[in-house]
Formats: sequence, structure tokens, C-alpha cells
Amino acid sequence: MNAIKIMVNGLPGNMARAIVQKALTDKQFDVIPYSLTGPEIEEKTVVIENKAFTLVPPDQKKHFIQDHKKWIESAIAIDYTHPTAVDHNCQWYCDNHIHFVLGTTGGNRVRIVQAVQKADICAVISPNMGKQIVGFQAMLAYAAKEFPGLFEGYSMEITESHQKGKADVSGTARSLIPCFQDLGADVHENDIFMERNPDIQHKQLGVPRLYLNGHAWHTYSLVSADQTVTFQFTHNVNGRSIYVSGTLDAAKFLHNKICQGHRNLIYTMIDVLKGN
Amino acid sequence: MNAIKIMVNGLPGNMARAIVQKALTDKQFDVIPYSLTGPEIEEKTVVIENKAFTLVPPDQKKHFIQDHKKWIESAIAIDYTHPTAVDHNCQWYCDNHIHFVLGTTGGNRVRIVQAVQKADICAVISPNMGKQIVGFQAMLAYAAKEFPGLFEGYSMEITESHQKGKADVSGTARSLIPCFQDLGADVHENDIFMERNPDIQHKQLGVPRLYLNGHAWHTYSLVSADQTVTFQFTHNVNGRSIYVSGTLDAAKFLHNKICQGHRNLIYTMIDVLKGN
Repeated sequence: MNAIKIMVNGLPGNMARAIVQKALTDKQFDVIPYSLTGPEIEEKTVVIENKAFTLVPPDQKKHFIQDHKKWIESAIAIDYTHPTAVDHNCQWYCDNHIHFVLGTTGGNRVRIVQAVQKADICAVISPNMGKQIVGFQAMLAYAAKEFPGLFEGYSMEITESHQKGKADVSGTARSLIPCFQDLGADVHENDIFMERNPDIQHKQLGVPRLYLNGHAWHTYSLVSADQTVTFQFTHNVNGRSIYVSGTLDAAKFLHNKICQGHRNLIYTMIDVLKGN
Repeated sequence: MNAIKIMVNGLPGNMARAIVQKALTDKQFDVIPYSLTGPEIEEKTVVIENKAFTLVPPDQKKHFIQDHKKWIESAIAIDYTHPTAVDHNCQWYCDNHIHFVLGTTGGNRVRIVQAVQKADICAVISPNMGKQIVGFQAMLAYAAKEFPGLFEGYSMEITESHQKGKADVSGTARSLIPCFQDLGADVHENDIFMERNPDIQHKQLGVPRLYLNGHAWHTYSLVSADQTVTFQFTHNVNGRSIYVSGTLDAAKFLHNKICQGHRNLIYTMIDVLKGN
């Protein structure tokens, strides 16, 4: 099998860098030494594991594709750029027949989906590339649909811990609130307890020091009205490796779909999880 | 609505007693003051909340039903007798057109199902009457079916704590092993760690003293190969109230089915959970 050609966009950003680092060690991938970047980035190149990546700012995208169209067309773009760049980049992928995996949030999702459906490409689009987290969300969505009111009368506590810089409440925790409500638990979005204090994170929760600057810990606790029954679900993620593997799995999945001749289709991580 | 007539069999056993206690406080139920009991039981009556229950040993079942057939026929039997008595009791329910909820384990399940299908009755049969636990098992079974290999490469630890007298490994924990295996986790039945030491249970795990003699605590931990991701699922049950409510919910569900004219049907707790 030929290696899967990928173009990782969003360097020198941390997610893009982590994906490049991992893909360079994996023979299944052939990483193109170019990366779309933001207009504010001053560097021209980024070196990762002795390989130089040329950064392509927005005003050079047109010129870049003219020079490399044939090469890039057979690649899968992996997008970890910036929420504000998503609309333009996705349009660029569509215009230039570049299949893509979109890990960046933001952008006009409806328009992106429509653009892919008109272009002759396929894409994996997901707000969360952590396969196991997406699987957990799907499990709860299933239970909420099949067993409404299962946790009727249960009270609920949700706590999440993220790096100090994260201002908003965990999107993953928020995404599960409607499920828990359908399951009958007495819980609301503003009940989510956010921990942002690194000292408490390390000493009380046990977040390793190494990951104080990049972690996503979530605990959902359900307690029966008479306090005799406790259910607790926890998913603690340190660093980025879960998202890196999920993204590369998405690229492999997309590559298979393309080889099978599929076009104009959008996949989610649920499709990747199902693997079919 | 008329109260649902129930005959709780298995007194003076703890589960039967707990169900009677709860049902006596609930206007939706009318508890018949008789209970099938074992041949070894010497008491003739049991008094619960000032109400006397006459115990009916096996050799008096025939005589009892002759005297009370009309009354008992319109009741739902709730069976928490003894594994060795299940086959005979279920046959007795079938022979006498008594719908039943079977919470007792043991017996020849295939034969019981066949007997119900031939008799003009309905039954709820489930090895676990804890609705939320059954729901959790169903969630995992769903994930295992839909997302095989989701936790590929993850190592797993399962710990369970039960009262000192329980010799065998938790059936709930065992029932989930094939699911976790299908999900790709590296785990086997003999990896389940059993805690039976009350001192450790109280001091290390935090089981309240009151429940050292009756609890079922389970924790399933999955850790990614690179140790950066942890998923943990816990369900801790103290005492019997979760099973009591589940059983009474099963009786209500069965009552509705009977009123709707259903016959010759077996339901599980999954049906009760789905409520349709």
C-alpha cells in the first residue's frame, strides 16, 4: 500500500505540530512539507524532527496551489488552523479538490457541508477528534434515547478541570447535559463546576504537573434520591495524544473511503468509530 | 386506577421483606398477606409494618391455591424465593395463571420461558432488577457492537467490593467482560479484583459501615497505552433499594401490559427501561 499523503495545516500551532510529529514516525503516512498558516505568523518555515515545513500564509495560497496542484490534489488535508480561518480554508479545499479532515472548531458548518457536497471530495468533520470521548458521548446519547428517565430522581454533579487559560466551560461537558436531562437527572449547564486553579488541579485532583498546561478532566456523578446508589463516569485526558491518534485514524478512514470511490460525502467521528 | 395486587414470595427473606416494606407505603400496590416460602422455614407468619403475612410452604401450595384461586389469579407474583425453588414456583405460576416478576436467579431459564409462552400469562424475568445497572450494561453492549475496538491498546482494571459472605466474583462485572473485550480492552475474567475485607472496604474504599453487610461496588478503569487517557466507570450500590424500586417498576410495567391484553410474553428489564 502506498503511504497516505497528508498536508497538515495550522503549523506552527500545537495540534498541527503534534500530528506532524506522530505522522513522521508512522510509515502509513507521507507528510507534505507545506502547511497553511495564519496571516500573523512571521516564520517562513518550521522544522520538526529535522524536516523543514514551508508555511503558506493566506495571501500565498493561490500561488502555492498553482505550483503544486497535482501533488496536493491527491493528498488529505488535516486542518488544525484557527476558527476564524476555517471557512476560507474549507472553501479552498473544495475549490481545489482536496479531501480534508477538519479538527478545527468554528466556521459556518452548514456552508462547509454544502460546499463539500458540491465539490468532488470527501471530508471528516468533527468538533472532537478524541475517538473514545466521542464513543462515550454516543453511549450516553443512546441511553438517553432508549431509556428516557432512567436516572429519574438522581441528583448530579459535573466537574471539569482544564488548563488555566481556558475561559469557557468544557464543550464536552456541555454537550452531555441534554443527555443527562433526558435520562431524568436533575442537572443544568450552570451546575458544571470548572476548576482552573493549577494548585488545586495538581494537589487535589491529581493532574500531573507536566499536564497542568494541557489537560481535560471530566467527572459526572449521579446519586440516587435516597443516596444509596452512585454512578460515576470519568474521562481524564492529558496532553493531545488522544486527539492526534483520532485525527490520524480519521485520515486513514477517509483514505479508504476515497480509494473505494466515495465522493461528496461528509463523515463524522462516529463513522470513523464504526469503521464502515 | 385500582391498586396493583401483588403477592411477594420469598418471605422471610431479605429481598421479599424489603419489597413488602416499600410496597406497603405505596398506594399503587395492594399486597396480598400470603407468601410462598421454603420447606426449611419454621415460622408460620411474618409481621411487617403491623401486617401479618402467612407463609405458604411447598406442601401447602396446592391447598392454598384451591382456597384462593380467584383472588390470586388477578395478582402479580413477585418472586424472590430461592434458586432451588425457582423451577417449581414458575411452573406453579404458569399452572395457575399468575403473572410474575422473577428476581430470583437459578432455575432452568429455557424451560421457564417455554412454560410462560404456553400459559396464558406474562412475566418479567431478569437476573438484575437494578434498572440503572441494566441500563449501564446496555450502554456498554451498544458501544461494543457499534464501535468494536474503540479502546484498542487500553489496559484495564476492574475492582468490585461485596459483603464478606459473597464467595463468587460479581456477576455484573463478569457480564461486562465480553463487552470490554469487544471494545478492544486487554482484560479477562480473572483480572477482576474482589475485595471482601470489611476493614479495607470501609477505610480504603469508603463503604459506609451500615452497608458493609450488603453492598455492590464496581469500578472499571481503562488506561491508554501511553498512559495519557483514563476512562473510569463506577457504580456503587448500598443496600437493596435500587433492586426494590426496579422490581416494583417491573410489576407496574407488567400490570400495564396485562391491562393492554398482552399474554404469553416474556419481558426483560430492558423492556421495563424502555417503558413501551
